[in-house]
Amino acid sequence: MKIEVVKNILDANEQMAAENKVFFEGRGLVAVNIMASPGAGKTSLILRTIEELGEPLAVIEGDIASTFDAEKVSEKQVPVVQINTGGECHLDASMIRKSLEKLDIGKAKYLFIENVGNLVCPAEFQLGERVRVLVASVPEGDDKPFKYPGMFSAVQAVVLNKMDILPFIDFSVARFMEGVRAVNPQAPVFQLSCRTKEGLGAWIDWLKTVKS
Amino acid sequence: MKIEVVKNILDANEQMAAENKVFFEGRGLVAVNIMASPGAGKTSLILRTIEELGEPLAVIEGDIASTFDAEKVSEKQVPVVQINTGGECHLDASMIRKSLEKLDIGKAKYLFIENVGNLVCPAEFQLGERVRVLVASVPEGDDKPFKYPGMFSAVQAVVLNKMDILPFIDFSVARFMEGVRAVNPQAPVFQLSCRTKEGLGAWIDWLKTVKS
Repeated sequence: MKIEVVKNILDANEQMAAENKVFFEGRGLVAVNIMASPGAGKTSLILRTIEELGEPLAVIEGDIASTFDAEKVSEKQVPVVQINTGGECHLDASMIRKSLEKLDIGKAKYLFIENVGNLVCPAEFQLGERVRVLVASVPEGDDKPFKYPGMFSAVQAVVLNKMDILPFIDFSVARFMEGVRAVNPQAPVFQLSCRTKEGLGAWIDWLKTVKS
Repeated sequence: MKIEVVKNILDANEQMAAENKVFFEGRGLVAVNIMASPGAGKTSLILRTIEELGEPLAVIEGDIASTFDAEKVSEKQVPVVQINTGGECHLDASMIRKSLEKLDIGKAKYLFIENVGNLVCPAEFQLGERVRVLVASVPEGDDKPFKYPGMFSAVQAVVLNKMDILPFIDFSVARFMEGVRAVNPQAPVFQLSCRTKEGLGAWIDWLKTVKS
């Protein structure tokens, strides 16, 4: 009974995600679903990408509560909509569709969708995105790929953020990479710091290779 | 339909949590439900508490996958059971009951239950615990109480871990405290570092005041 209901919800979501995908492709818009733990640096990565990408973009911010992240994006003169999920631990395709009605996409070439901070639930819900990116961060520890294999296997790229504080943390990049490769043999992994901008170039170059 | 099913699941969980609570109280066992983002330091806090508390204790480790955390606890000669939830983003009362069948509680006075790393879902599921503790950490950012009010309001104590890297992070303790107090006026907040042990004393002293 429980399983059946959950399956129906996921089916309905996939149907709407497919419709979102058609909408994005029709406009030549590259939709990027950014997922991470709370505080890994999703918003910081989006803000740095706005500065460095040199392409028009738009942003959908997802959070349980608050509008802090949308305010930060708005200060960059970028169209943005904030979704507050109330208690839901992830975005879903219908939330994206509704927020698109309020978002001035204009000539945007990229749509960044910042998911709710959570390494579990968001991986199960397609939004219609072109690519999924996981932002991990050094202080979370090098064991996270082993503990959250579902999330690490569900993405097309991994960003390892906060590399600037590596000297102050017990973290082995080799062990982290071993964990990523165990569940995701191909995704590029970008080691960078949104704070110092070190390593951002490779991420930006990769984004430019992603076509809608 | 969806809401009704979810409500039934929560009702069934609360019933079983109440039974767990009776079991814990009958043995004079203080059950502590430890919740946090991935990588905030739940396991580190448990390991330091084992070293410093000076009371017999037992541990239940919850993770989506892997047995790393249980292995670390086991090295301290403490009875421990690992729950792997598969994909579930939180522990529930029935998982606790089943794991109790395998756990050698012996003369333990405290049972530490490490929940799945997640700032959303675990707050909705009672386990039968005496107290709930949230482990936040400096690198996650000072805005987390504003973004995850459900979690921050659902606990009897907050630990702010990784204070040793405060000099290297943009984090305002005052803003964090403001966020905590907005949703949780009374819970004590313990600023500490599991890495350096600084500030652990107040946490240990508080734990000793909690009676089953």
